[in-house]
Amino acid sequence: MTQQEIGSALARAVNDVHEKNPMAPSITNTVTQDFVANVQLAAGGSAAMLYLADECEQMAKVAQAFYINMGTAMPFYAETLPRTAKTLHENKTPWVLDPVGIGLSSLRTDILKQFVFFAPSIIRGNASEIIALAKLWSLIEDSGGQVRGVDSTEKVSAAKAAALALANFTGGAVAVSGEEDFVTDGKQEILCAGGSVLSTKITGSGCALGGLMAIYLTVAEPFIAALAATTMFNLAGIKAASQAEAPASFKVNFLDNLYLLKAEEVEENFRVVGSLEDMFNFKK
Amino acid sequence: MTQQEIGSALARAVNDVHEKNPMAPSITNTVTQDFVANVQLAAGGSAAMLYLADECEQMAKVAQAFYINMGTAMPFYAETLPRTAKTLHENKTPWVLDPVGIGLSSLRTDILKQFVFFAPSIIRGNASEIIALAKLWSLIEDSGGQVRGVDSTEKVSAAKAAALALANFTGGAVAVSGEEDFVTDGKQEILCAGGSVLSTKITGSGCALGGLMAIYLTVAEPFIAALAATTMFNLAGIKAASQAEAPASFKVNFLDNLYLLKAEEVEENFRVVGSLEDMFNFKK
Amino acid sequence: MTQQEIGSALARAVNDVHEKNPMAPSITNTVTQDFVANVQLAAGGSAAMLYLADECEQMAKVAQAFYINMGTAMPFYAETLPRTAKTLHENKTPWVLDPVGIGLSSLRTDILKQFVFFAPSIIRGNASEIIALAKLWSLIEDSGGQVRGVDSTEKVSAAKAAALALANFTGGAVAVSGEEDFVTDGKQEILCAGGSVLSTKITGSGCALGGLMAIYLTVAEPFIAALAATTMFNLAGIKAASQAEAPASFKVNFLDNLYLLKAEEVEENFRVVGSLEDMFNFKK
Repeated sequence: MTQQEIGSALARAVNDVHEKNPMAPSITNTVTQDFVANVQLAAGGSAAMLYLADECEQMAKVAQAFYINMGTAMPFYAETLPRTAKTLHENKTPWVLDPVGIGLSSLRTDILKQFVFFAPSIIRGNASEIIALAKLWSLIEDSGGQVRGVDSTEKVSAAKAAALALANFTGGAVAVSGEEDFVTDGKQEILCAGGSVLSTKITGSGCALGGLMAIYLTVAEPFIAALAATTMFNLAGIKAASQAEAPASFKVNFLDNLYLLKAEEVEENFRVVGSLEDMFNFKK
Repeated sequence: MTQQEIGSALARAVNDVHEKNPMAPSITNTVTQDFVANVQLAAGGSAAMLYLADECEQMAKVAQAFYINMGTAMPFYAETLPRTAKTLHENKTPWVLDPVGIGLSSLRTDILKQFVFFAPSIIRGNASEIIALAKLWSLIEDSGGQVRGVDSTEKVSAAKAAALALANFTGGAVAVSGEEDFVTDGKQEILCAGGSVLSTKITGSGCALGGLMAIYLTVAEPFIAALAATTMFNLAGIKAASQAEAPASFKVNFLDNLYLLKAEEVEENFRVVGSLEDMFNFKK
Repeated sequence: MTQQEIGSALARAVNDVHEKNPMAPSITNTVTQDFVANVQLAAGGSAAMLYLADECEQMAKVAQAFYINMGTAMPFYAETLPRTAKTLHENKTPWVLDPVGIGLSSLRTDILKQFVFFAPSIIRGNASEIIALAKLWSLIEDSGGQVRGVDSTEKVSAAKAAALALANFTGGAVAVSGEEDFVTDGKQEILCAGGSVLSTKITGSGCALGGLMAIYLTVAEPFIAALAATTMFNLAGIKAASQAEAPASFKVNFLDNLYLLKAEEVEENFRVVGSLEDMFNFKK
């Protein structure tokens, strides 16, 4: 896709969500659920969080997209997550996987190993998480490295090979979040200019970004959905950082800006730092 | 009750909560707990959220009112919710039921069927939820219709018969939330002018409204408690919407206004659009 | 320690956290997790919340400090909490205990009785909770008294004997939160000037204070960590209260001020009302 085609597709996705108020249910961690839901609402979508296996299965059949974030796993996740992902796959319901906490326990490892069969449409994580998942699925060589709780110990660029391998394996998109954001569908590679560093001083930025990708998955293909959410996030973050100097007022301004952003602004300001393959070479 | 009597009763409830700082424990969903608690605190009450069956039973015996919201059900809800509702009923502790997610799973249906024996003092929901509950309890005919996750697919007016049937069955009050709010005790029917549309762009407005009703249930009868919370919410919402143009700053202003609202303002500005039975015919 | 020595130690702790961005994992209640995490981030730390026993054990081995808050206990806490506390003790990982909800159920009592063997480095609670824990551990005489949900029914001063007994027993520090804050390590006793009364109108102030103590435990001894968090909280609260007249805007300002506070300000403004033993007699 050309820059112009991508820009138009992003604007279309943003508009479609404004018009259709689509819902994307989530299984997501208890810490940041409120922020995830408020981000989904601010962008024009609708939210519903669930835990029970049969409810998640039921929603996986009727929803247009789904978000699974593995933070704050609870014992019943052992049943809920695999059954939900299986149902999503069987029903061709697109879904976003956020493998937060990968490696922390055998439960998480077991669940993530099962997910290899259920092809998440978008995998979103920080560099450490993306690398860890590609290793777990034996898509890249395991040469060590580590994840520290929920924070990345790696730069975005370090996860390029892992992201490409995952995207080529799933046939979907992968988004590596960091100071800049790398989004790929295995063929196209885009490095988006990041948002504000203040977003690292509030909890749940990554979770909310994943939840927003699920909203855009209801109206767009994975690569565009991942880019649309990333661009909305970064633009709202840049605007908010110009209005606030500290995290809590930044968060208020961020959500407000997300709500106020128009599709045309997203199209005009879609900021690509560069393709890792130099596919694009346009405005920063 | 006349308009004046209702206005005085609302003012008394608001004042009593300011003076007594009453606590109403909650079993409520993990997404919006923080907002529910902050709304309860802003209005002058106190909050405590619980999950364990024996703790909820214990609190159900000593609390002056209780809030049960069925969102984000977890496996142990199967034990906690029926035992708590039974204890509330046996101890004549007034309680608010928010049947969010009704119909999503057999667990919810089983629990809600048991609640038919435990007479919630206030049932609060959107139109779809109120209709679904009246059908589940066989109080109105089941002619189809549906609930979409947590959002209503019906107008408030469509739930009138269901609300009346529920109120007459429980002997308590029913509040149907929407653009306007319908509150009834089965005899009196009031359609309150709504708050701000921005409250649909933040998560947890309905949950927090239910939680606030539980606070007023500690000092007032169900019909007045439901009206007091609804009026506080709508007034705070209207003020907040005049101060903010987007959801996150609206939420901050909403909570601030809730905290600053005086009983006299509630009495003066109690806004009734009209009774569905033309019982009242006063200022809008 | 002299006033000057304490002031310098506090400034060092604040600076160290700014520089090292240390992580302190938490097992904490679902209501206020988001606020706890955002407070930890605002002060320069990092957050991770967990529930599963094996994950918490794993983190207890590698973390530099840990926070356990007993609010909203869930059934699996029966396994998670004792195993985590045991691992923390065996690995000499410092940890903060917030015994919120003490006395509510046999599960909580059982868990808290086991904690007597695992020496929390800091115990933080309101007066009622501190007294209840000292009684449960048979460190003071049980002469009645009660806890009302999450609110204290006692003044801070009433908990002095209990706090001293607990600190002498664990060899750590105890912080009693209230209008003023009493912090002791069993030998030194400091009564800190409190923050703003508005902090009682937002949910989670106590939880977030405990979570922040865990962050400072990664770089300081218990007595200094408890004082550093308390001082940061109170200074940020006083500043926020001068900028906001209602709870929600107070909360935004509070987090912003916490983020902006410099180590020098903490050193200069460390406000002691007085020692209960008249150990200190300096500026209020």
